[in-house]
Amino acid sequence: MATNPIDHRDRAREIVAGLDLDQKAALTTGAGFWDTVGIDGAGIVAVTLTDGPHGIRKQTEGGDALGLNNSVVAVCFPPAVAMAATFDPAVAEEVGDALGRACLAEKVGVLLGPGINIKRSPLGGRNFEYYSEDPILAGAMAAAFVRGVQRHGVGTSLKHFAANNQETERFRISSDIDPRPLHEIYLRAFEHVVRTAQPWSVMAAYNKINGVYATQNTWLLTDTLRQRWGFEGFVVSDWGAVDDRVAAAAAGLDLQMPGPGQGPAELVVAVREGRLSETAVDACAERVVSLALAAQANSVDTTYDHEAQHELAVTAARRCLVLLANEPVDGTPLLPLAPTTRVAVIGEFARTPRYQGGGSSKVNPTRVDAAVDAIAALALPDVVFEPGFTVDGTGDESALRAAAVARAAAAEVAVVFLGVPAGDESEGFDRTDWRLPQVQLDLLVAVLAANPATVVVLSHGAVVDLAEVVAAPAVLDGLLLGEGGGAAVADILYGLDDPSGRLAETIPLRLADNPAHLDFPGEQLHVRYGEGVFVGYRGYDARGLAVRFPFGHGLSYTTTTFTEVAATTTAAGIDVAITVTNTGDRDGRTVVQVYTGLDESVVARPPRELKGMAALALSAGESRRVTISLARPDLAYWDREIDDWVVEGGRYRIDVGHSSRDIDATVSVEVAGDTSTKPLGLDSTLSELLAVPHGRAAILGQLQKSLGLTEIDPTLEQLIGSIPLRRVVPMLGLDAAELTAALADA
Amino acid sequence: MATNPIDHRDRAREIVAGLDLDQKAALTTGAGFWDTVGIDGAGIVAVTLTDGPHGIRKQTEGGDALGLNNSVVAVCFPPAVAMAATFDPAVAEEVGDALGRACLAEKVGVLLGPGINIKRSPLGGRNFEYYSEDPILAGAMAAAFVRGVQRHGVGTSLKHFAANNQETERFRISSDIDPRPLHEIYLRAFEHVVRTAQPWSVMAAYNKINGVYATQNTWLLTDTLRQRWGFEGFVVSDWGAVDDRVAAAAAGLDLQMPGPGQGPAELVVAVREGRLSETAVDACAERVVSLALAAQANSVDTTYDHEAQHELAVTAARRCLVLLANEPVDGTPLLPLAPTTRVAVIGEFARTPRYQGGGSSKVNPTRVDAAVDAIAALALPDVVFEPGFTVDGTGDESALRAAAVARAAAAEVAVVFLGVPAGDESEGFDRTDWRLPQVQLDLLVAVLAANPATVVVLSHGAVVDLAEVVAAPAVLDGLLLGEGGGAAVADILYGLDDPSGRLAETIPLRLADNPAHLDFPGEQLHVRYGEGVFVGYRGYDARGLAVRFPFGHGLSYTTTTFTEVAATTTAAGIDVAITVTNTGDRDGRTVVQVYTGLDESVVARPPRELKGMAALALSAGESRRVTISLARPDLAYWDREIDDWVVEGGRYRIDVGHSSRDIDATVSVEVAGDTSTKPLGLDSTLSELLAVPHGRAAILGQLQKSLGLTEIDPTLEQLIGSIPLRRVVPMLGLDAAELTAALADA
Repeated sequence: MATNPIDHRDRAREIVAGLDLDQKAALTTGAGFWDTVGIDGAGIVAVTLTDGPHGIRKQTEGGDALGLNNSVVAVCFPPAVAMAATFDPAVAEEVGDALGRACLAEKVGVLLGPGINIKRSPLGGRNFEYYSEDPILAGAMAAAFVRGVQRHGVGTSLKHFAANNQETERFRISSDIDPRPLHEIYLRAFEHVVRTAQPWSVMAAYNKINGVYATQNTWLLTDTLRQRWGFEGFVVSDWGAVDDRVAAAAAGLDLQMPGPGQGPAELVVAVREGRLSETAVDACAERVVSLALAAQANSVDTTYDHEAQHELAVTAARRCLVLLANEPVDGTPLLPLAPTTRVAVIGEFARTPRYQGGGSSKVNPTRVDAAVDAIAALALPDVVFEPGFTVDGTGDESALRAAAVARAAAAEVAVVFLGVPAGDESEGFDRTDWRLPQVQLDLLVAVLAANPATVVVLSHGAVVDLAEVVAAPAVLDGLLLGEGGGAAVADILYGLDDPSGRLAETIPLRLADNPAHLDFPGEQLHVRYGEGVFVGYRGYDARGLAVRFPFGHGLSYTTTTFTEVAATTTAAGIDVAITVTNTGDRDGRTVVQVYTGLDESVVARPPRELKGMAALALSAGESRRVTISLARPDLAYWDREIDDWVVEGGRYRIDVGHSSRDIDATVSVEVAGDTSTKPLGLDSTLSELLAVPHGRAAILGQLQKSLGLTEIDPTLEQLIGSIPLRRVVPMLGLDAAELTAALADA
Repeated sequence: MATNPIDHRDRAREIVAGLDLDQKAALTTGAGFWDTVGIDGAGIVAVTLTDGPHGIRKQTEGGDALGLNNSVVAVCFPPAVAMAATFDPAVAEEVGDALGRACLAEKVGVLLGPGINIKRSPLGGRNFEYYSEDPILAGAMAAAFVRGVQRHGVGTSLKHFAANNQETERFRISSDIDPRPLHEIYLRAFEHVVRTAQPWSVMAAYNKINGVYATQNTWLLTDTLRQRWGFEGFVVSDWGAVDDRVAAAAAGLDLQMPGPGQGPAELVVAVREGRLSETAVDACAERVVSLALAAQANSVDTTYDHEAQHELAVTAARRCLVLLANEPVDGTPLLPLAPTTRVAVIGEFARTPRYQGGGSSKVNPTRVDAAVDAIAALALPDVVFEPGFTVDGTGDESALRAAAVARAAAAEVAVVFLGVPAGDESEGFDRTDWRLPQVQLDLLVAVLAANPATVVVLSHGAVVDLAEVVAAPAVLDGLLLGEGGGAAVADILYGLDDPSGRLAETIPLRLADNPAHLDFPGEQLHVRYGEGVFVGYRGYDARGLAVRFPFGHGLSYTTTTFTEVAATTTAAGIDVAITVTNTGDRDGRTVVQVYTGLDESVVARPPRELKGMAALALSAGESRRVTISLARPDLAYWDREIDDWVVEGGRYRIDVGHSSRDIDATVSVEVAGDTSTKPLGLDSTLSELLAVPHGRAAILGQLQKSLGLTEIDPTLEQLIGSIPLRRVVPMLGLDAAELTAALADA
């Protein structure tokens, strides 16, 4: 049975009590790029932390100074951008489980992931490492991933905490965010994962939040993470994220990475000079030692089956594929392809897959399935292939295009693989454009002209402009599928599995429609999250903007309906029962999406917010009753006046649909609100008093005495209703003491 | 020769030196609703402050407790919403001049205006009192108005300082605004007026700015207004805006209004308890005494000519009218009307003008010209009239509509007066909808069906939805025209003057397109100005949104071209020379609008910003060379890092046009930037060093020694270029001292 660091907390405390200040301080910075400090005599082992999260990127011996190259061979699962499209935490948990096994075999103590930052803009350079524009979806996927890894006694590190939503100036920028979006959008997934899955660690991000570095942010690391959410693990810095080691320790950052460096010495001096309490260093050291004890206890000599994990990488990838469009050509949808169809495979990405992003998450894969090979294995006629373009656009593109067009014209169906070059999507920088390379768009136009029966398969880590792509009748969005993606694409193209991926991000018509467009990526070391809670589909919906494809969109080879929706409140939230029916004549999959809205609210709310989902497989004609439970905390808004979550009472709209804009059924349910009354007094306004009986009685009693008024004319109330009473005590002839007493009596 | 309070500062100081603390404190709160405190024995007279600004709203003796009713008869000039449409400061100055004379006659020492807040949203309840969504236009109009009033020795009060852009919760809300929009949009017009016209007073607003009440905001009232801008007058609170009198005095608020109240006593106690310096009270008292001395010195017994000022109200109103559309019907534009045309005048507003807004600015007019009478006076055939609807929609609307339709059908041209009911537009509350009443829209549809030759004349204080209105071939936008509006409308309809008003606000297609839509009017006592600098047309342009009518739009009965544009830099800014030609066969007017843009900038800039304008009258066929000078300060952006304005060097685009989206000519000019270099050091990033020669030499020298690198690979720079060097000193083997020295040497 795997143990967790928290199980070793008492022993860690004992060990730390026996160390001197230098030793304790030494523990709080890494020994090198990837390992913690061990102290042999004290029974403290070094623990290896390793990049992830969609595979193990463990540095081989003698790797480079920056730790970027030469990692061990490992299975490259689909990155988060694709995993989110499954809308199915079970898939994430299964992959996490495999990664936990692999970590054990590789002697990795902590896998540095999952990354759950919210995608504000399609231009976010690291979007491929993150799940979604929606925090409920991101939180559900990540919690499952953490459970999968950690059941093996291997830790995870939830990152990048917090509000690290861009790469531009990530080391110095301040993410300036108001309380509601901060809690409802940017912290919500972190809170969910911490509360429900207790990751061993949380990784503090590079950036500042409202002017304070995440690594030295007491409000973030201690008040919120530990005290409010109950986090029991250790906080590690992102690599190089500590700006002031002493402030970081005081704020609750336990482990500075990488090491070595001056951090420990700075802590020692600060304690000696009275600028830092030794108990702060003790707390950091104890958490590092707890980690070491857990890692040691869980350590086993084992291996794992690359081949079996590769198969999982393929099956997971199948679930990620999003069928965006599948229009009939000559009366019949192009997909799925029949084995007998004569297919021309076009596009360099069919033989040189684009399957993950660049930077710290880049895995050295076991092998990479090329789609062209997998298609050839499933097709009965010979499959022809033409690259059609070069990825960097520096070849003889006209000749390549001409050859491809000739192949397309001669085939029954052309399958064209387009995508974003790998060098354009990496940690470290944001994109400045969201368009596919012009050579690829030119190719597509030419192929479509030669053969309208064209399927486009896309590879990319972040949302791209599909203005030209949707001219193709069928579009299969592969996102980034990991090393098994080529096989998965072929399986879906030929209908060996039903496409069931759903967009975890809206695809807008124009980049300028993106809610964050005007302040991404900020300037002068500040980025204002000016769209507030209206991120992603919340914003497109609130502004009533048409989109290319809405959040949650994805087709299937069959059709499904959601009917007989019934919502009932429970102590835990709302149970939504739905009859899901496969109305087609094929076995298939579907994703039931449950959104809520509250049209009358004290705060501005998005028209529709995802609160629950279920991914299901149904046989042809099968009908099944499912219940999706919406958690009551997920209904809450963040109330900045009381600095806490509040579930507002009222009639909530429940929309059950296939996407955020394709709703099959709507019901509503009355939810009792949290009790929270603000006392009335002299800082209240006339209108606030008039709105409740005891306030009305109190103020009218006063006004009758002073001005002889027995009623407030509505026009007068419009003009003066918003004045705090304290300001008009003399003007209205109020007796402040008497009024206050009358209000307090109620 | 009129004197200003500043001329009396020395004498005021002497007088105040002879007062005791109680007397000094007494001076800093009003004696009553409208008067300051006078002290007979000290030679300090009471001064009357009176609502404005588009007319005098001086309370008659025995007015009501709240000071809202029973004011003296005064000429009601066009409110600011209409004055701004002239795009002509000369008109504002002429009206200001008339008001100054009237104030002298009425013994008014200070006229409480102009109001220059920026219109964030069409829903702003007090938009009719403000000029524009653009600060350059608002500043130019207001400065001229102040000059006009103050040349008579009557003060103005520039309001509402600052960021009072809504009525909802105006007494308690915090306007949360980032530095750039705060300075570039919301303070810019205030700064311009203070620097160029020295208003006698500035009125501190009700709201908070970034959490601090305007009335007790030292940064706003002292650091910015007085120290940075050089304001020499007194700061008066908006009526009831002081929350904490002691904090307000410390922050620089001189005069609390209204009085009496506990303010003076609170100041005295605070001074005695050492919580407030007596010099702070002295400063307030001295400014109030300076005002009293100036008012006394300028006081004369005089009268003014109501009739002449009414005529000015008419001529000013003519300049405000915006001809939005004038499409041909049967080959000929409907307007101007021929005197011989048989006209049906329809709509209650033709006989019951809607000409000003509600609340503190509401003037008791000398007389109100009804458009139907003025039209009848100009038309040769008899003019028929039908009300068509009731303003409050509670009449027999079907019968009214039927009668109107019959009249329209029988006429050659129908002129339909539509508008927003007066009760819907007032100080005290924001609008929740921007549509015209349904009974009016129903009427218009019916009239258009009966007679396509229909002209719509609009009356409203804020932008309304014109989706249905633009079905009419001709639309004349009257905004709110003051007491002479009816005559002015008739004059324009019949071509006695050329329409030359231009929209000072964009009219969007949908309310949801408004840049402020998602956070207006805020919640939980905060309103985030999330659109940043992208207010009004700046936002519509930046997002590339189609609009109903763009900022600056307005037609004429003739046509004008702007050609041969030449831009030259001067010490003062940029001179733009333009050949303006009346290419039509009618005498007419035009407004030349000069916008700038800087496409490559360190900050996100709107594509186009108004920087200069000129309103001209030209005879048919006349051509004239004009020069419009753009002030260098107006080119600056607010740099939050150095906390000051910066004119960025670069090639500025100069767009000269008829509206923000109808550009006749574009040139560009190289502008030298302000000198401002940020020193390089260990907090700089690798990329910042690589970007300049001495930094490049310094870092490459180091990297060659430590890692043997002679060049940085671009891909590597993308990944690590944004890391502050201090973070990677050990990792890259840098010698921090040596590097710092090398950077300092340069």
